[in-house]
Amino acid sequence: MSGDTVERPAMTRATLSRVADDADVSISTVSKVLNGRAGVSEATRRRVEELLRDHGYNRRNTPLTVAPLVEVVFSEIDSAWAIEIIAGVERTARDLDLSMLITVSGDRHKPSPDWIEGAMRRRPMGVILVFSDLSPDHRHQLRARNIPFVVVDPSGAPAADVPSIGTANWSGGYGATRHLVDLGHRDIAIVGGPEDMMCSTARLSGYRAALEGAGLDVRADFIVGTDRFHFDEGLRAGEQLLDLPRRPTAIFASSDTQALGVYEAARRRGIRIPDDLSVVGYDDVNVARWAGPPLTTVRQPLAEMAAEAVRLVVRLRDGDQPDHLHVDLESRLVVRDSTRRLT
Amino acid sequence: MSGDTVERPAMTRATLSRVADDADVSISTVSKVLNGRAGVSEATRRRVEELLRDHGYNRRNTPLTVAPLVEVVFSEIDSAWAIEIIAGVERTARDLDLSMLITVSGDRHKPSPDWIEGAMRRRPMGVILVFSDLSPDHRHQLRARNIPFVVVDPSGAPAADVPSIGTANWSGGYGATRHLVDLGHRDIAIVGGPEDMMCSTARLSGYRAALEGAGLDVRADFIVGTDRFHFDEGLRAGEQLLDLPRRPTAIFASSDTQALGVYEAARRRGIRIPDDLSVVGYDDVNVARWAGPPLTTVRQPLAEMAAEAVRLVVRLRDGDQPDHLHVDLESRLVVRDSTRRLT
Repeated sequence: MSGDTVERPAMTRATLSRVADDADVSISTVSKVLNGRAGVSEATRRRVEELLRDHGYNRRNTPLTVAPLVEVVFSEIDSAWAIEIIAGVERTARDLDLSMLITVSGDRHKPSPDWIEGAMRRRPMGVILVFSDLSPDHRHQLRARNIPFVVVDPSGAPAADVPSIGTANWSGGYGATRHLVDLGHRDIAIVGGPEDMMCSTARLSGYRAALEGAGLDVRADFIVGTDRFHFDEGLRAGEQLLDLPRRPTAIFASSDTQALGVYEAARRRGIRIPDDLSVVGYDDVNVARWAGPPLTTVRQPLAEMAAEAVRLVVRLRDGDQPDHLHVDLESRLVVRDSTRRLT
Repeated sequence: MSGDTVERPAMTRATLSRVADDADVSISTVSKVLNGRAGVSEATRRRVEELLRDHGYNRRNTPLTVAPLVEVVFSEIDSAWAIEIIAGVERTARDLDLSMLITVSGDRHKPSPDWIEGAMRRRPMGVILVFSDLSPDHRHQLRARNIPFVVVDPSGAPAADVPSIGTANWSGGYGATRHLVDLGHRDIAIVGGPEDMMCSTARLSGYRAALEGAGLDVRADFIVGTDRFHFDEGLRAGEQLLDLPRRPTAIFASSDTQALGVYEAARRRGIRIPDDLSVVGYDDVNVARWAGPPLTTVRQPLAEMAAEAVRLVVRLRDGDQPDHLHVDLESRLVVRDSTRRLT
């Protein structure tokens, strides 16, 4: 029944009134709970919700108004990969006759506290959180209203009961570094991502494991952390690495836009890619293909992750229990022209 | 009253019944018209809408259900500038307590025929069409439901009564070419955009005017048309231009991603930018800043255009008549490192 428009229920005034009586609150309070508005204590909200369920407002009947919308929540959309996720959600949602609503809220850890109120008003049939987790309170409120949610590319370890779609970050980092080792590089540096994000930690850990597996030293001055996956951070980290007395012959950047920053650091110093320096990125967004030279990178299947998230949210909405709550799709190295055998 | 949630009206069954009687149709037909569903002839739809208005369903009361949504319609979002428009709409919409819904439909001329049905179901408070116009029929249906619409960056001359926000494409093309002339270039080529888009025609016309103003020949082999603003088209056009017996010393590309294609064509031939070739792009999307070397380009204020479109749609919704239905924002040359004085 995916894609059906669920109409506003014929919630009779009589039912409202009975629930209000039973909960010992006003009809206006019941209405607030129904519509996800503020100004109701958490205890009252739960009592009213329980009573609403007792009066037949249970999951399978989806009795509350549900809009045929998928809401996608980003902490920022100013990035090269946001558009790939947006495009992936849009295509899949359209196939399922759902519309896509985009909200920008909060930071990379979770949406801002006031986000939930808007979501309660909008009543999407499901929520996809990109690069964010949810507070226990938000989770509770969404569940109370039977709004399923899925986290895409979780930035921290998501709670055990929060469905998530990620990619294999450790093997991505391992594969990128291993590729450089196989090309004969020994002085391989990394531009790491934000420390507070699981994906960065996993990529860095894959980098270390590949070096150690090849019997190479992990040099502290070859690991430069950043707090964002953007161009400017890549540029600064690249400059730091390329100004070292013993300069790396290869750099693995934790995003494609960071890799472009490394390109710029090299260009400013007259260091040629791939002749003097090999560079590997991460993500495989379109700028990787447009770079000069085209960038070797680890492909994250962002559009497929987005599509998978939409399908999962629809399954959850339909009451299906998925076999796996946490799915990591494959990361795959795409070799282009920015890496070369060390001669 | 921007940002208010307009609740579903208390449309009584008695009123529905009277309208149905007066229009000589069934109540179910009236309901279809109210909800923008298919299966009603255009003549019947108009008759029912008129009667609904007679019964107090007029503009100022906004009596039909209106969702606090702005719907943005793209023909494709797989482009570097879509994200800037999305970000601009989102920020402004959020400030006005509106949500943003993204739909991909149709081609660069107009949304597909079935788009309107979905829009009628979604009942956004306004529609922003990016790079598209509307068929007269779609216009009529939106107007009948008091859903205002604005075209951003119109691809063809929009109808006189369709509000639009564009940029000054002619002066953009003129300024880009003039900049190259001022640097001493005489052999200046252009990678033109799609012929069926007004913006391409205007940029090309600005290019011609700048050359003619400087007393330079407009050479037919220096004008290469493309049918998309993308990287691959820029690469192919760049290869064609750089393989000419008399090769241009400067190329003006009609988009930044096309300019990156020209970069790649140059790189493959060992032609250095800006030493051997100056390149100017168009748009000033983020990839312009990330290019190596950073790209001189014509800035289109995409985020501001998007913000202006949201504000205009809200004014129209509130019944205000704007002073100007067609507004072109300024295009401005941003000089970076891809252009150099010819020596």
